[in-house]
Amino acid sequence: MSLDYRAPLRDMRFVIDEWIDAPAWWRSVPAWEDLDSAMAQQVLEEAARFVTERIAPLNSAGDLEGCRFENGEVLTPTGFREAYEGFVAAGWPTLALDVDAGGQGLPQLLEVALQEMLAAANHAWLMSPGLTHGATACLLAHGSDAMRRDWLPKIASGEWLTTMCLTEPQAGSDLALLRARATADAAHDAWRIDGNKIFISGGDHDLTDNIVHLVLARLPDAPTGTKGLSLFVVPKWIVDDSSGKRVANGVHCEGIEKKMGLKASPTCSMRFEQALGWLVGEPHRGLASMFVMMNAARLQVAMQGVGHAQLACQRAHAYAHERVQMRAVSAPANYGGEPGQAAPIALHPAMRRILLDLRSTVEGERAIGYWIGYWLDVAARHPHAGERQAASQLASLLTPIAKAFFTANGFAAASSALQVFGGYGYIHEYGVEQTVRDSRVAMLYEGTNEIQGIDLLVRKVLGDGGEALRALLAHITGEAARCAASGDCALRDAGVRLDALAASVQRVTNEIEQGSASDRELPYRVADDYLALLGWLLLAFAWARTLRIALNAPVDDPFYAEKRITAHYFFAYPLAAFDHRLKLIEAGCRASLPYAGQAFVD
Amino acid sequence: MSLDYRAPLRDMRFVIDEWIDAPAWWRSVPAWEDLDSAMAQQVLEEAARFVTERIAPLNSAGDLEGCRFENGEVLTPTGFREAYEGFVAAGWPTLALDVDAGGQGLPQLLEVALQEMLAAANHAWLMSPGLTHGATACLLAHGSDAMRRDWLPKIASGEWLTTMCLTEPQAGSDLALLRARATADAAHDAWRIDGNKIFISGGDHDLTDNIVHLVLARLPDAPTGTKGLSLFVVPKWIVDDSSGKRVANGVHCEGIEKKMGLKASPTCSMRFEQALGWLVGEPHRGLASMFVMMNAARLQVAMQGVGHAQLACQRAHAYAHERVQMRAVSAPANYGGEPGQAAPIALHPAMRRILLDLRSTVEGERAIGYWIGYWLDVAARHPHAGERQAASQLASLLTPIAKAFFTANGFAAASSALQVFGGYGYIHEYGVEQTVRDSRVAMLYEGTNEIQGIDLLVRKVLGDGGEALRALLAHITGEAARCAASGDCALRDAGVRLDALAASVQRVTNEIEQGSASDRELPYRVADDYLALLGWLLLAFAWARTLRIALNAPVDDPFYAEKRITAHYFFAYPLAAFDHRLKLIEAGCRASLPYAGQAFVD
Repeated sequence: MSLDYRAPLRDMRFVIDEWIDAPAWWRSVPAWEDLDSAMAQQVLEEAARFVTERIAPLNSAGDLEGCRFENGEVLTPTGFREAYEGFVAAGWPTLALDVDAGGQGLPQLLEVALQEMLAAANHAWLMSPGLTHGATACLLAHGSDAMRRDWLPKIASGEWLTTMCLTEPQAGSDLALLRARATADAAHDAWRIDGNKIFISGGDHDLTDNIVHLVLARLPDAPTGTKGLSLFVVPKWIVDDSSGKRVANGVHCEGIEKKMGLKASPTCSMRFEQALGWLVGEPHRGLASMFVMMNAARLQVAMQGVGHAQLACQRAHAYAHERVQMRAVSAPANYGGEPGQAAPIALHPAMRRILLDLRSTVEGERAIGYWIGYWLDVAARHPHAGERQAASQLASLLTPIAKAFFTANGFAAASSALQVFGGYGYIHEYGVEQTVRDSRVAMLYEGTNEIQGIDLLVRKVLGDGGEALRALLAHITGEAARCAASGDCALRDAGVRLDALAASVQRVTNEIEQGSASDRELPYRVADDYLALLGWLLLAFAWARTLRIALNAPVDDPFYAEKRITAHYFFAYPLAAFDHRLKLIEAGCRASLPYAGQAFVD
Repeated sequence: MSLDYRAPLRDMRFVIDEWIDAPAWWRSVPAWEDLDSAMAQQVLEEAARFVTERIAPLNSAGDLEGCRFENGEVLTPTGFREAYEGFVAAGWPTLALDVDAGGQGLPQLLEVALQEMLAAANHAWLMSPGLTHGATACLLAHGSDAMRRDWLPKIASGEWLTTMCLTEPQAGSDLALLRARATADAAHDAWRIDGNKIFISGGDHDLTDNIVHLVLARLPDAPTGTKGLSLFVVPKWIVDDSSGKRVANGVHCEGIEKKMGLKASPTCSMRFEQALGWLVGEPHRGLASMFVMMNAARLQVAMQGVGHAQLACQRAHAYAHERVQMRAVSAPANYGGEPGQAAPIALHPAMRRILLDLRSTVEGERAIGYWIGYWLDVAARHPHAGERQAASQLASLLTPIAKAFFTANGFAAASSALQVFGGYGYIHEYGVEQTVRDSRVAMLYEGTNEIQGIDLLVRKVLGDGGEALRALLAHITGEAARCAASGDCALRDAGVRLDALAASVQRVTNEIEQGSASDRELPYRVADDYLALLGWLLLAFAWARTLRIALNAPVDDPFYAEKRITAHYFFAYPLAAFDHRLKLIEAGCRASLPYAGQAFVD
């Protein structure tokens, strides 16, 4: 039994080539005329090799060793720096960056797959390069010419790492409460930044020779609230004008947090004291610039959820096939043999339920997550502006769903997998408990999952009068119609069911919209359940299309046989959660929600 | 804001005096003629004082310090030994032990409340005395006269601590696979035990001068399987016959596990090498003797789930009322004021949902958990054998439900509370992440939650032809009828709903029973959902009766006002989970469940 991470290359190929049929789209893009399925596979195989050989082996050891904070500096665990150097040397940071900007210009779709692998292999290690793409995108969009000339190449290539400095002790989800301030420094044609930031991932470390902080702070004339925030580039090291030498900027790491997980990733408290900073974009418009970073980051976080679920799923499968306990009550038809005196626990019904739950979740999510990557590519590369706009709108609608739904499922998957391991799951050496601890943070950062629910329902569904949602539902009902027209009765049922789910979503959305007119709180009461409802709809979409494809595949190919089994299982069991969420939303439309009061304890 | 644990004495009094009306029953028991509500409260107040002053302050520090394993011995964290000495000196171990056996003879109901407090305050510390009652009950029922004379007083009083040595590397849930063996030692009129045991809580420690292990092993003529297991008492230290001096027995701790949580509780690997042991009960009947320990332990574990949920709930409430972020979208009717520019997050709908979920779960569970304690008292003290038997059957049916449902909810509650804390929840110092880690083990030990599901459905519901279930449903429909006869329309609805839930449970149980005839696997496919279904039924029972009581209480007493609010919330939102579980069971009755196969990864 091996519990080492192995990249699910076969399923990745299935999603890219068959579920999405990305190669067909690539052929229509001039820049990608050389890109085909085989080449994409080669890229992913190389990524898998790097990730499994260099990154994954540091995961458990990094958790045990953790980071150290000594003399105001952060030391990362053994091997992290070397692995990071290898990552940069191999060019992985620039995989999907435009060729014009010094990148390799490959599809975001492949970048999404790479992110999944990295998160599964070593989430803590991934935290360091996690903001490279966001910072790159932000400077490309809003940076001055000088920034793009002097700093961008180093940031984009990963030579220098970056951070996103938003949170302050009094300001977490509510950025309006930020206090960090900027005052003019005419001598340097720049600004001086003062303030305290907390929860800064990679605020200090020993991986790169410089660290570039992107900091939100207020100019002297700034209005209150979020419309008074400006964004600054604040490097740890700067070049002294007179001497030409490298000197320390006023950026101080004051300590690292003791956390539940991600112990190999330093979460820093930062103090900026008269630190030189340069304005990115327009004054008071920093939040808009920062959102470029945050949207990219949210899809990455969604893929962390998929990575955690994948790692948990494959470990649970491996263990359940190896561990022998108790005679099985039955021999399932597709087991192909009688179980002996004591059987692998993979045969016991309770374990089969968990294993199939894990699999139907992670494989369905992979299809949806990669589909978002595909739409980002369409949004960036399609020749027609209307198509670009539609794709962008769709990706923007899907991102908060993926962020919150996949991360909640990633944590739940890790906990379910732990249950398969029994008492061994609670012990560090099997690795599952680490995944439970590491995965939990993804429900909190880059906007808590509750913030995602509000972003989805209030901003993206109700905010545009339901236009983006209708576009999504059109994709889904299209698939439903194709399935419903099938001669296979399970696929026909899946198609009819999928169509009904889409209709339920439209109906309950209308109900929320109408109710909101007289009850402003309504969408906020139901936002989390609404997000999960769309999550289950998307998984149903994923499995309906998967079943349709798998029914056309050779009958004796075990890969497709298992896809058919898992699809049948998904529609029979887990999808019941859709109805559960629908009931909760209906309850929220009907019932008031009191204030929870103070708990009485004595 | 205080995040210190405070015992929920007000709610405990409500459950004992009003929900159960235990004092009425105590008055009918000769031994308890002096026991009334005031005296019970006094006991619980003293317990709360001891627990909050002596035990709770060691929780976070114990987690940080952990246990050490040095030179073959285990050292527990600073303060643990002193706290344990205080616990024994105050007589807490013998609270509910019969007066004849040297105890204080108080009701099990109060013991259950004490267990809840200890688990909430410091689960890891509780692990050490956790087996005292089980070992005491086991020796009282099955020990020889010599054992009861020489060892029992020291064990019952807590002077010596005990362990339960079942698990071996190859034998976790499946005790049939145990290999430890016993060979006769005629010279000592005893047995020599050899074998390896793992996951032994408190297998070694520095809290008491001796440790008494209860060990399952096989006699030379033992049949294979679970019917060949015998139970032995194996002390760490024994008295040498010739010298009269204390010498080490062949009991060796070989190391402690690095675990997800419970870091202050040593989980030991034990090696027994020619260790002298004395047979408890009859040869080959060790499992029956051990079950006396395990049943007592299962209710304790259930109360750990309640304790974790309580701690998580009160911390989330405290934090949500203190933390100010964003303007509230609305001012709930019962808030009593307009929220300001930025409001306590307790006002935000998503947080209100979580806070009310936590509260409705923990307060409902408390009623059910204490009700089980009450039935144990009836089973032990009622003058009529028939009543004792019925009470025992009911407690036995309820115990696996409470063990699995409460522990799963305890972990979920801790994770939900962590979400209320946002990023701070992921940091050690707020304590919530420790509760997530500590609570997770309760779903695994004392029989995994999946084992509880099988115990409930296969052994206790189907095994007796549904008799115990019908007795439970009679209690529930009785309450439903009282509620349905009310003039209050919400209570009437609750009564009608509760009656319908009970009918659904009976109907689906019949369906499972009928289906099992031709499909042996069926109950195993649905056992976990069935257990959760009964869990939700019991919470509905708890809240219906609570609402009935609260409607008769003074309108302006805020305690009952919050009970009414929480009851309304429970029926409007969380109880939707009953229907979800029912659907999953119906799916299990209908659909086959394939074998999950091997996950394809590359």
